[in-house]
Amino acid sequence: MTKLLETINGPEDLQALTHDQLIQVAGEIRDVITHSVSRTGGHLASNLGVVELTIAMHRAFDFHRDRLLWDVGHQCYAHKILTGRREMFDRLRQENGLSGFPSPAESDCDVFSVGHAGTSIATALGMALGAQHRGSDEKIVALVGDASIVNGLSFEALNNLSLVKRQLLIVLNDNSMAIDVTQGAMAGFMSRVRLSHTYEDIRKTTNRMLEHLPLIGPRVEETLENVKKTLRMAITPSRLFESLNIPYFGPIDGHDIGSMIELFKGLSELDRPALLHVYTKKGKGFTPADDNPCKYHSTGPFALDSESEPSAGGQRSFTEAFGDKLAELGGRDEKIIAITAAMPDGTGLVNFRRRFKSRYYDIGIAESVAVDIAAGMAKQGLKPFVCIYSTFLQRSFDQIFQEASLQNLPVVFCIDRAGAVGNDGPTHHGLWDIGCLRLLPNLVIAAPADEWELCRSLELAAETQKPFAIRYPKETVPDDDFGSHMPYEVGKSALLREGDSEYVLIALGTPVGQALQAAELLEKDGLSVTVVNARFAKPLDEAMLDWFRMGKTVITLEDHSIAGGFGSALFEMASRKALNDRDEALRDGISRMVLLGAGDDYLPAAARDKQLFWMNLTADKIVQTVKGLTCPPQKDDT
Amino acid sequence: MTKLLETINGPEDLQALTHDQLIQVAGEIRDVITHSVSRTGGHLASNLGVVELTIAMHRAFDFHRDRLLWDVGHQCYAHKILTGRREMFDRLRQENGLSGFPSPAESDCDVFSVGHAGTSIATALGMALGAQHRGSDEKIVALVGDASIVNGLSFEALNNLSLVKRQLLIVLNDNSMAIDVTQGAMAGFMSRVRLSHTYEDIRKTTNRMLEHLPLIGPRVEETLENVKKTLRMAITPSRLFESLNIPYFGPIDGHDIGSMIELFKGLSELDRPALLHVYTKKGKGFTPADDNPCKYHSTGPFALDSESEPSAGGQRSFTEAFGDKLAELGGRDEKIIAITAAMPDGTGLVNFRRRFKSRYYDIGIAESVAVDIAAGMAKQGLKPFVCIYSTFLQRSFDQIFQEASLQNLPVVFCIDRAGAVGNDGPTHHGLWDIGCLRLLPNLVIAAPADEWELCRSLELAAETQKPFAIRYPKETVPDDDFGSHMPYEVGKSALLREGDSEYVLIALGTPVGQALQAAELLEKDGLSVTVVNARFAKPLDEAMLDWFRMGKTVITLEDHSIAGGFGSALFEMASRKALNDRDEALRDGISRMVLLGAGDDYLPAAARDKQLFWMNLTADKIVQTVKGLTCPPQKDDT
Repeated sequence: MTKLLETINGPEDLQALTHDQLIQVAGEIRDVITHSVSRTGGHLASNLGVVELTIAMHRAFDFHRDRLLWDVGHQCYAHKILTGRREMFDRLRQENGLSGFPSPAESDCDVFSVGHAGTSIATALGMALGAQHRGSDEKIVALVGDASIVNGLSFEALNNLSLVKRQLLIVLNDNSMAIDVTQGAMAGFMSRVRLSHTYEDIRKTTNRMLEHLPLIGPRVEETLENVKKTLRMAITPSRLFESLNIPYFGPIDGHDIGSMIELFKGLSELDRPALLHVYTKKGKGFTPADDNPCKYHSTGPFALDSESEPSAGGQRSFTEAFGDKLAELGGRDEKIIAITAAMPDGTGLVNFRRRFKSRYYDIGIAESVAVDIAAGMAKQGLKPFVCIYSTFLQRSFDQIFQEASLQNLPVVFCIDRAGAVGNDGPTHHGLWDIGCLRLLPNLVIAAPADEWELCRSLELAAETQKPFAIRYPKETVPDDDFGSHMPYEVGKSALLREGDSEYVLIALGTPVGQALQAAELLEKDGLSVTVVNARFAKPLDEAMLDWFRMGKTVITLEDHSIAGGFGSALFEMASRKALNDRDEALRDGISRMVLLGAGDDYLPAAARDKQLFWMNLTADKIVQTVKGLTCPPQKDDT
Repeated sequence: MTKLLETINGPEDLQALTHDQLIQVAGEIRDVITHSVSRTGGHLASNLGVVELTIAMHRAFDFHRDRLLWDVGHQCYAHKILTGRREMFDRLRQENGLSGFPSPAESDCDVFSVGHAGTSIATALGMALGAQHRGSDEKIVALVGDASIVNGLSFEALNNLSLVKRQLLIVLNDNSMAIDVTQGAMAGFMSRVRLSHTYEDIRKTTNRMLEHLPLIGPRVEETLENVKKTLRMAITPSRLFESLNIPYFGPIDGHDIGSMIELFKGLSELDRPALLHVYTKKGKGFTPADDNPCKYHSTGPFALDSESEPSAGGQRSFTEAFGDKLAELGGRDEKIIAITAAMPDGTGLVNFRRRFKSRYYDIGIAESVAVDIAAGMAKQGLKPFVCIYSTFLQRSFDQIFQEASLQNLPVVFCIDRAGAVGNDGPTHHGLWDIGCLRLLPNLVIAAPADEWELCRSLELAAETQKPFAIRYPKETVPDDDFGSHMPYEVGKSALLREGDSEYVLIALGTPVGQALQAAELLEKDGLSVTVVNARFAKPLDEAMLDWFRMGKTVITLEDHSIAGGFGSALFEMASRKALNDRDEALRDGISRMVLLGAGDDYLPAAARDKQLFWMNLTADKIVQTVKGLTCPPQKDDT
């Protein structure tokens, strides 16, 4: 067969193809995705599952004008390939390449930059209301997975859907798998629906809906009435949505391109919001992913040969080190509970789950309730460890405030993906957790720099009767531990290297490693600097203020935004102490502070090292900063 | 009748009372609440609605041991009166008095300090799982209103309820009114249920459930089967919850103490979570509140004579000024949309709603989706103004990040109750909005100090093609405008008073007024200080750095936590500029900075002025701080 895909430079090029040609295009897209992701890494299984669905949507709608809202958006690869980005696709998730998520900067077919769950119905609702006010007639489609629809934000949007008095189609992409196997009533309901009927039933539903298509007019009530007659299932899947007054259609086969095109076209004529339930198979068409969709949910580069597993890059990550340690602690203390929001692999809990099934909870993509469940457990004397990526924990800020900080309950927040995240880019950075969490009284915030500190912080958290946050990056652990000879206590820093120059690098978290490298480089150049590991962002070690009092120039380093970060916290403490103690030496020292970290913009997708470079946190950049300070200031020539 | 209530010093004292005596106690509680709230202010209508329900719960459970989780908790007054706090009740919401919300510090019958919506089922779920792990048999009850159950957090908890394999009773207190009339599918469903049957139907349901009580065994399935036979309603209210696999009972009359006691006792024997739907009447028993529950939802002191309205304190508030201005802008520009999360009165939108009904949206207590709806509308070219209290906007941080900041969409956030909130206390302070929001690229954050600036900031927000936050406190507007002669532009400060001493007060927001007062007091003492109105927390006016360069001592004042606040933002800018420009004069000035604002603890309920005193923001305290700086430092005698 000729490569049809090479002729598709935009969705408009799909319009002339025959049904068989569309099927061929689907196969070619699958090849492109599989081969490309095997080299670049990315989300595989979910993207293979929605190839036909994506083609059908592009055939039925014109997304230059109609609006397609993705949820999470990690399943948008076929969409990117079909919308003029095929040739860039081998640069997926690379610097100056394509984002792994929808991006309006890349194409007018992408509406929102997304990456978090539950936003598609919510923003579609807003856009539909906007169209209602403007009187414009573009079609609006939200594509949401069965994992995202259980998110509270999705529910809040569904609950308000009746505000819309025009077309709005919600396509529920149900692969009954979520990221991992999802818990929860909605998932249970979907799963019972799925088990209650055969593929033959689905075909019949689809065919009867198609028969009634000529009857699909603008009035949703009539259409529903006609279509309902066709349903012959043990459990009526419409019940859940209909009690929320949402017209429900389906379920239909999400790999049957022809039927989907006709149904999309028919349903797009409705004058009210409606939901179409589509069954797809995650990982379809690539046997290893088909067999093990969890492993291939989000992957690094891997070999296409099905025998070998996706490579984890070989070196031990903070995530793995965390998972091993938490499992060890779980073996020692029956009060320890692990909670994840649909990320057992990503947060390293697979080991814990295997060993302590009854103390492991996956509550689905529902970060807000995860924290409140943990608070309830802590109130009962248990020791819950809530394991959520930094960026997704933003969904829980209010719960961390009211249910953990205000009650001073010992909930442990294990914050993976803190700092720059590399190729996932702006929607996934964890650059604000210190800025948010340190506002909250009672919290302890630890930022381990190596595996030894990660383990100590977890042990300490298990013993401390306060809310305790531990942040660590998507990064391999350093080969050596930096300060394992110094006792690890809440709010105590560690002096790692004392130099005789005026420069003191105070680093928090993994930048400790870069600070030490920079110190070695500077030493070779004859400048001997001091390196301190702050270890905690809250409470701060008051002993660090001695460096100010000694007249040193303190340079703070953090894998976090400068705004509201650790450096500012240190300044606030110094300023307060200087005022209260009338400490002029301390006050004087404040003036020399230099803060290094992320600035006030979005770091694009790139290798994490590159992002650290942009944040002035690589060893070379630190050297450059220090050397810059040693030069006498240039006078302005004004 | 003798005053029975005086004999009730704890819920145990209810146990010996007859049914008639319980009804008498209900009446006496109502009197206490009405009279007391008329003097102290507080939530009236909702508390009058749940008197019988509260008595019945305390008769059926022992909340010294069993656990009662309140949602929002503003309806806990009868509970407080019955649990040993009757004599303190006239000090409700006062300094050193009783909190207006549940407070574990006051009583072992209160479990969580709450104030935000949607947490009761979530924390009850965690506590039930905790009891499951511990093997303890205390009963767990979550009391949630029809306004809170539509919150995404409630839904996330309901979706995970099947994790619980023991007793957990959810009491849905349905007054079909929410705070205002709630929009949304769930409310619509409840309302259809309510309309579909008469009071007689409810009596029948209740009686038949009671007849089947002897059959209520530990197995929920049998009980459900028996009870279902008793339901004869047009719409089965169980449908919604049963599709989520939650056993549903009711609806029953929430003012029938005797039946409720028996049903609570029966349902408390179930071995699985269940939901009991209870109808109550908001404001029951006090005619003005009965007739106008919205007005008496949350009120200041008022006259018991039913003709007069609750007093708003007489003076014009920021909320009123905002409401008038937004309505004026709405009249000029059809693109302006107002969105509230169930707080049209509290956020001042009543006027806008009356004038522009089609451009006004109340989406219920669902702050997260409110922001995403606004983002969708902004994408369509509209100008949405999202009006949410500072503390509740914490629920939307992640949406403000992804859907507003990352997309750089012109959503306007009108943040009422920013700063210390006075008598509502720790659950309601708005002391962290700058700390969170200034982390986000693209945002503008304005903090008007007077009505003129509030109006200018709203006009500016309507024109600016960026996300724009405006924060203002629960406070009356100053009589005079401070700087209406100086142009109001994004990121520009205003010099209000230039003094010849070294002291410069840079205030953000309403503390500008106190700074000016302090300057006058200091002037009388012969010290002439400079006063600057920063106007914006982001972007900051670089011109403010000149004060540092001139060798002045800069004192920042903000109605916000010092941590992560405006003062730190100013420091960060000064430090960055000093480094980049090699500006030694600027660097030198940084050392003298003094930051005033809230510290790292929870300010208890008290008058707002008292809280400002604790934050060192009253004029006297500012004078004291400045005078302290003028004294030569004391040497340590060590």
